[in-house]
Amino acid sequence: MSNALKDYLTACQNRVERALEARLPSDNILPRKLHEAMRYTVLDGGKRMRPLLTYATGKALNIAEDTLDGPACAVEFIHVYSLIHDDLPAMDDDDLRRGKATCHVAYDEATAILTGDALQALAFETLAHDPSINATPAARLNMITSLAKASGSQGMVGGQAIDLESVGTQLTLPELENMHIHKTGALIRASVNMAALCKEDLDPTVGKKLDHYAKCIGLSFQVKDDILDEESDTETLGKTQGKDKDNDKPTYPALLGLSGAKQKAQELHEQALESLSDLGAEADLLRDLSLYIIERDH
Amino acid sequence: MSNALKDYLTACQNRVERALEARLPSDNILPRKLHEAMRYTVLDGGKRMRPLLTYATGKALNIAEDTLDGPACAVEFIHVYSLIHDDLPAMDDDDLRRGKATCHVAYDEATAILTGDALQALAFETLAHDPSINATPAARLNMITSLAKASGSQGMVGGQAIDLESVGTQLTLPELENMHIHKTGALIRASVNMAALCKEDLDPTVGKKLDHYAKCIGLSFQVKDDILDEESDTETLGKTQGKDKDNDKPTYPALLGLSGAKQKAQELHEQALESLSDLGAEADLLRDLSLYIIERDH
Repeated sequence: MSNALKDYLTACQNRVERALEARLPSDNILPRKLHEAMRYTVLDGGKRMRPLLTYATGKALNIAEDTLDGPACAVEFIHVYSLIHDDLPAMDDDDLRRGKATCHVAYDEATAILTGDALQALAFETLAHDPSINATPAARLNMITSLAKASGSQGMVGGQAIDLESVGTQLTLPELENMHIHKTGALIRASVNMAALCKEDLDPTVGKKLDHYAKCIGLSFQVKDDILDEESDTETLGKTQGKDKDNDKPTYPALLGLSGAKQKAQELHEQALESLSDLGAEADLLRDLSLYIIERDH
Repeated sequence: MSNALKDYLTACQNRVERALEARLPSDNILPRKLHEAMRYTVLDGGKRMRPLLTYATGKALNIAEDTLDGPACAVEFIHVYSLIHDDLPAMDDDDLRRGKATCHVAYDEATAILTGDALQALAFETLAHDPSINATPAARLNMITSLAKASGSQGMVGGQAIDLESVGTQLTLPELENMHIHKTGALIRASVNMAALCKEDLDPTVGKKLDHYAKCIGLSFQVKDDILDEESDTETLGKTQGKDKDNDKPTYPALLGLSGAKQKAQELHEQALESLSDLGAEADLLRDLSLYIIERDH
């Protein structure tokens, strides 16, 4: 990871941690257990890749960070709710997430379902109502539409449904790609697009290219995740290693071989860089991030 | 039920059925099973009490029905998602809802979790993006904030969390009331308030009184539900009778006795009427509805 990205990542992680903390209900407010579970699952964990993308896109477009706190938190609330529900016994049945016990293990299944539900509502409340967002009502509505579409049945949740149905089946490469474009890609694109939507006079071509950048890194992120699931160990990952393979879930290394998957990640990185060709040094963090995604070890 | 209300109820049920149908993704679109489950749970069922409230409030304020379709559908999407999650084995574990097999029985648990999640996203997408809503962007944002707060951890989901924690405990009357104000009351108030928010020049006093009307009928609805759960049979209810009592859940009849609960419902109805005293005959449906809520047999 470049030093510039490392510093920026740390600064963003600190910034988003404070922003999330300020937007979550206190665990002194009733119902305490629910609010405690919301704070337990959201705070102090994760790479914060999606908020980082929102801030870095905002930096490339010269948008004030205060305005970006709202969308950065909203996308993270959606991401965390999806992890909580994805980890449930009826779904992936995982005990460990971000190095901590998953919500239904630390609390109980009912609380985990409700915690996810409440975080989804909080995401949209944040976009609609957060006073720190300096954008027109129309721009806020565009952000809400972007995030809602990205999380719904033709976005992230749709991808999870495709994923569940595909366990034990032999997906082709286009089918696998379609699943990931929905399951993880849609939210990553929303992270970038929400920042772009804050700038209402943005050249539509730049907006389109940023969306393509996000599509490429969304896929390379997933390819790399599959590679890590194959190569890394549980302690480094902070989640159960080899789980996807054991569950007979389709992966890029299974379809392309390990070296084929690595080549795929590299090609996506190159496409991502190409999408940023109209932007100058202000987009260097986005470039570094694309490289980091395919080079990270967890 | 008055004939005027009966006709209006039928007209609203037909109208909202068409509006819901038009806003749900077709089950020809992938992922088919998820979209099928969304349509199965939303369409052809329920009293549509919340959409009815939205339309009836709109009628009292002279708002075009086209504008109300969006909020009416949004609140019903939220209501249905909450029923789907509430019926899960980890929550109330119910097999029967609206006279049909519950979602996790008709499909499976994972699909039921995802169907609820997707419906929540669709609710907010509808408010942000639906072209039939003739309101300013600022008014749409107020509706989104109203619905998000009403469904979140300090609204409906919070009420469900309080409800789960209270099973087997002895709630006092204020505690029971607090639970219902959150669990069912918040969404009923949002149904009324979202219609009022469509009228941006509304006298704030009228808005406040309408909110109080909604609070009263939200509670009387719950008191009556508890009475029905005690008195009615499974076939008439379309859900398992005596379930709350069997689960040792707190109810109004348990705390106040059956006649005390009936008196409570009557008092709430009178308060609801009082809240409409500034409005003329255009609010008669709201008056009839309050009466119907405490007189219905299912």
